[in-house]
Amino acid sequence: MAGDIKFAVIGGGSWATAITKMLCVNLKEVSWYMRNDSAIEHIKTHKHNPNYLSSVEFDINKLKLTNDINEAVAYADYIIFAIPSAFLSAELEKLTVSLKDKIIFSAIKGIVPETSLIVGEHFHFTYDIPYYNIGVITGPCHAEEVALERLSYLTIACGDANKAKVVADNLSGNYIKTKITDDIIGTEYAAMLKNIYAIAAGIAHGLGYGDNFQSVLMSNGIREMKKFIKKVHKMKRNINDSAYLGDLLVTGYSVFSRNRMFGNMIGKGYTVKSAMMEMSMVSEGYYATKSAYKLNQGYQAKTPIIDAVYEILYNGKDAKSVFKKLTDQLD
Amino acid sequence: MAGDIKFAVIGGGSWATAITKMLCVNLKEVSWYMRNDSAIEHIKTHKHNPNYLSSVEFDINKLKLTNDINEAVAYADYIIFAIPSAFLSAELEKLTVSLKDKIIFSAIKGIVPETSLIVGEHFHFTYDIPYYNIGVITGPCHAEEVALERLSYLTIACGDANKAKVVADNLSGNYIKTKITDDIIGTEYAAMLKNIYAIAAGIAHGLGYGDNFQSVLMSNGIREMKKFIKKVHKMKRNINDSAYLGDLLVTGYSVFSRNRMFGNMIGKGYTVKSAMMEMSMVSEGYYATKSAYKLNQGYQAKTPIIDAVYEILYNGKDAKSVFKKLTDQLD
Repeated sequence: MAGDIKFAVIGGGSWATAITKMLCVNLKEVSWYMRNDSAIEHIKTHKHNPNYLSSVEFDINKLKLTNDINEAVAYADYIIFAIPSAFLSAELEKLTVSLKDKIIFSAIKGIVPETSLIVGEHFHFTYDIPYYNIGVITGPCHAEEVALERLSYLTIACGDANKAKVVADNLSGNYIKTKITDDIIGTEYAAMLKNIYAIAAGIAHGLGYGDNFQSVLMSNGIREMKKFIKKVHKMKRNINDSAYLGDLLVTGYSVFSRNRMFGNMIGKGYTVKSAMMEMSMVSEGYYATKSAYKLNQGYQAKTPIIDAVYEILYNGKDAKSVFKKLTDQLD
Repeated sequence: MAGDIKFAVIGGGSWATAITKMLCVNLKEVSWYMRNDSAIEHIKTHKHNPNYLSSVEFDINKLKLTNDINEAVAYADYIIFAIPSAFLSAELEKLTVSLKDKIIFSAIKGIVPETSLIVGEHFHFTYDIPYYNIGVITGPCHAEEVALERLSYLTIACGDANKAKVVADNLSGNYIKTKITDDIIGTEYAAMLKNIYAIAAGIAHGLGYGDNFQSVLMSNGIREMKKFIKKVHKMKRNINDSAYLGDLLVTGYSVFSRNRMFGNMIGKGYTVKSAMMEMSMVSEGYYATKSAYKLNQGYQAKTPIIDAVYEILYNGKDAKSVFKKLTDQLD
């Protein structure tokens, strides 16, 4: 019975809030960990997360809210991590409860800065979790549209199809459709790489390129992503499936994407530092760019877009001239 | 010498105006045919097309403007047709000058309603033009961005690579990059089919689906397009090249696309007839839907999106329930 399996969600942001909302449709109880005590108190009193997706009303009888990550991890069979990748290591350091035999699903779209690994690899190499106990939850999915109950499609990846199905079944609902795949590496890299292309789209927009160029950039982006992922993990996959192309498009075309916004500021002439300060946060794509670029020194996939973003973000090159050169490499 | 080759542009609309602008960069003289006498007079006097892309200034010494299609055809070696497909037959009926030995490039994105053929096929079967004298000019390219001199990429398709190159060279410029291909059938079908997906995107938007679903729709759309074109003409092509995926995206994501606008009205509850009247024009995608659907009765490609749009536009089915069913067929 799906109802007997215990889930915990780690994180208090918008994506964690959306996932908890989905789980509450199918489960009698969900453990939900967040650091912020006052947010927990607010949810308990007002049934709404005060900071993210605040329109979503929760049945608080279903929520086991806690500010103790160990309590959440001890409770659950399936643990869904949905926090920015930059905070993952710090959260995991708090663990005294073992992750052994836990099934870990990552809803994080990024690279762990300390290890330059995608989240699945990080759990595998740093915490000895076998790959059959690791999975990925991926979009295309803006959390904001889950709040509005707008139809969204999720892809659930796990080497063990049964576990993928358990997660898929417990997330599915009237406005959530799910499919499963065994491509945990490919889907997670796609979710990470798309943020780099979203930064590129933002830079292009900031520099004054239009919709014609944006479509060429996305068309080149998906070809580049395919080459890159193929080098990382070669298997039969259709790069135009929603988990890859769809996820790229929903981010690359979104004016709300933080990565695109960050790129837009760079294109408009902000320095990397001032763009970060202005946004008072760091976009996932910023770390992803460095990791993807460094990784690709070994793989040697042809990735002119990633290279261009890297030159701008990490080598202080002028966005306008880097993009001028980039336009000659696209077709 | 490129300068010795004579070009004529057939059409007075925005895409014809954009193409004439591009040619004028590289040629000393361009023949430009349009029906509208007063527009010709306006251009001669004011250097601007009064009705389309009116910000574009022409060097009128380069323009051989004429309201006589025979004069334009007699003059040119290369004839670029850029009129709505619904008007093509009527224009061709005026011809007394032979098209024999002329090189015909289509910049029309649609189906000839009278023959249900794409434009290249129409010239081939109805006018006996050999395929090596037929080519296609395709985007992704909004004419409006050419007017603004925003960087755009064109794909020029012709069975004869030399002829593709002549056209590419004469369209290229500071803000126009070109590539050539021999896939005339595939690029022209893509340019036609994308309008159906743009209608679907509009219907979805009109029905209240959001960005998450739009990205899933486009991801399914490109997979469907690939299957369809493969049935029509099997050859090695990368469906994610700009001429296919890029063209789909620039149209499917454009709020200015007439096809998307038409679909949006249908999604909002307008009847097909009233949506057409309200727009005071028929979208290319309307005809394309019927032709693609009928064609596919023979090919039997799996095309749930085209089928759904057909049911709504031609069988009077309710958009809401057709799309509800469609969402179960996408992934």
